[in-house]
Amino acid sequence: MNEIIQEQLDTVIASIQPKSATIGEQTSAYIDTLTKPPGSLGKLESLAIELAEMTEQPFPTVDSPSVIVLAGDHGIAEEGVSAFPQEVTVQMVHNFLQGGAAINVFARQIGASVQIVDVGVAQELDVETARQPDDVHEKSNETIQFMNKKIRKGTANFLHDDAMKREEAIQALLTGIDVAHRQIEEGANCIIVGEMGIANTTTSSAMLAVLSGQSLQSIVGRGTGIDLKTWVHKQDVIQQALNHRQPNADDPIDVLSKVGGLEIGAMAGVMLGAAARRKPIIVDGFISTVAALLATQMCEHARDYMVVAHQSQEQGHRIALDLLQKEPLLDLDLRLGEGSGAALAYPLLEAATLMVKEMATFESAGVTDKQS
Amino acid sequence: MNEIIQEQLDTVIASIQPKSATIGEQTSAYIDTLTKPPGSLGKLESLAIELAEMTEQPFPTVDSPSVIVLAGDHGIAEEGVSAFPQEVTVQMVHNFLQGGAAINVFARQIGASVQIVDVGVAQELDVETARQPDDVHEKSNETIQFMNKKIRKGTANFLHDDAMKREEAIQALLTGIDVAHRQIEEGANCIIVGEMGIANTTTSSAMLAVLSGQSLQSIVGRGTGIDLKTWVHKQDVIQQALNHRQPNADDPIDVLSKVGGLEIGAMAGVMLGAAARRKPIIVDGFISTVAALLATQMCEHARDYMVVAHQSQEQGHRIALDLLQKEPLLDLDLRLGEGSGAALAYPLLEAATLMVKEMATFESAGVTDKQS
Repeated sequence: MNEIIQEQLDTVIASIQPKSATIGEQTSAYIDTLTKPPGSLGKLESLAIELAEMTEQPFPTVDSPSVIVLAGDHGIAEEGVSAFPQEVTVQMVHNFLQGGAAINVFARQIGASVQIVDVGVAQELDVETARQPDDVHEKSNETIQFMNKKIRKGTANFLHDDAMKREEAIQALLTGIDVAHRQIEEGANCIIVGEMGIANTTTSSAMLAVLSGQSLQSIVGRGTGIDLKTWVHKQDVIQQALNHRQPNADDPIDVLSKVGGLEIGAMAGVMLGAAARRKPIIVDGFISTVAALLATQMCEHARDYMVVAHQSQEQGHRIALDLLQKEPLLDLDLRLGEGSGAALAYPLLEAATLMVKEMATFESAGVTDKQS
Repeated sequence: MNEIIQEQLDTVIASIQPKSATIGEQTSAYIDTLTKPPGSLGKLESLAIELAEMTEQPFPTVDSPSVIVLAGDHGIAEEGVSAFPQEVTVQMVHNFLQGGAAINVFARQIGASVQIVDVGVAQELDVETARQPDDVHEKSNETIQFMNKKIRKGTANFLHDDAMKREEAIQALLTGIDVAHRQIEEGANCIIVGEMGIANTTTSSAMLAVLSGQSLQSIVGRGTGIDLKTWVHKQDVIQQALNHRQPNADDPIDVLSKVGGLEIGAMAGVMLGAAARRKPIIVDGFISTVAALLATQMCEHARDYMVVAHQSQEQGHRIALDLLQKEPLLDLDLRLGEGSGAALAYPLLEAATLMVKEMATFESAGVTDKQS
């Protein structure tokens, strides 16, 4: 079993191509003919060039966007590391399906479809309320879809046991790939990745500590808003867990299975899946960036397809971003998750593509170019 | 004449009310009941509260937005301070009317109407191409309107003469107020202010030097992209002009008339007009912020209605922002003007209002609130 699914994963990874520098040069040269001083649209210009390189289109497109929210629970929540009880994961999944969460609001604003994917919620979802898999919810033209892809009912408490089996970690990655490919086949040109899982900043901090080699004091943040005492306890729990589990920093699947989360594995899978199809991925905040690091460790080229939406308030995010070698577009002191920051950044990607497609050139508009 | 128009201006200024702290507290308390950890939407939450305070609506609205681009020429362009020749102002006005400039692209993206207002372009506009005043241009549901409000054909070269008469400066302010009020009467709930005028970073730098008391070396930037030699020359020209004109820093209309620009006066007028009607104003970059300072100097409460869109690449912008006591929402290395950065920031204002209006509360969604 392990070998078969590992092979499936390897096939996808092998298909990921680096971005196209040639197309980027074409787009860059074209942007310099547009009616504005050269370089005056700053990061929007570099973003447009990057999107051209990713998509291999000199006039890139990012609509229509698809928001994919991966939900899973964390056994480590037992250790009292979060400000919210574990039942909030399933309650928030219901909230997503009713269209009442922040990510729903921002997805509607940008005209994105929303996929809520249960890869490891601890409780059974009440299908009456949560709807059958693939049921489509229509409200002011919005699409909210639920997918039951539960791999197991939450991870084990990694203070005492490995979070999941290696096989389950690979399954989480493959699930993410599959969900991304389905969305792309349905027309998505940009993938926005989000998550829900009480205690998943603890999990992400543990993973980042392994991947970065940095101290827990510099990595661990206040999550959804824990007090100082809980913050010290959270660091202590992670330190003990790392001592017990000894994840291998050179083997991302080992890190994921020993101290990871099902939704974090699936998020990395979504990113690998989008990269394999040359679709831009908007990385959200701290947890999303840790998933991006996992994907990048499995395939260096996956990084080429990532745009980081924002600098999170969560303190470990800076370390994760440095490791990913990416600068975020926004800095709004967000720390919500769900993909909310990524949805907020989407209009900038859209603007970059519209700039290339719709602006007049000096020649077409009859405007005198710079005196030189 | 001076007295009558001064009185008109004073009446508008006297009608500007401070923002409502009471409504802000209501909105703030309501935001804490929404299904997210308290404070986790960071600057979006403070933005929503500010918008509530401005509009006196606990559930504020910013649609539909109106982009107002003020165009005027600058006699100081004769001194070779810009990378582009003066004829580009009128050429760009034509480009705006054809829908091909950056501001058109970003206005279409956010569904904003665009008003192009000639308050002082040096050349006569070719009405065949530029259309009659108030002619409406329809293209994919966009509205582009031209208004001929020319006060004079460009300012005088303020190295040798006052840029304009005091009466013309007041007229520029009143024109801006009038344009803003017209847009608000037509349904605009948010005003995006932009400009076009070759050499207007030189004018803005001169004004900021007077208003801030800071050195020209720290204020003067590279504008549309001048070389080092021209940059030194630009500082030198401004220094000589300030020595000759001696604007009174305590009299904003004196500053505007001696070293200002017609479009900069009109921009300040638009801001005063919007503030008088309690409508949020999105301030763009360097020139827009200098206009905001002018408006604020005339009426301290005008500041309450301003949101600054972005940190410009133009070096004096930081000084102007400190003086205005505002932090920008975006930092994208823009230096284009036209209101382009303000239009790019609009989706964040919209998102803040939608968050308040559309998110579920812990109670309505049946989600367990924080353990405390």
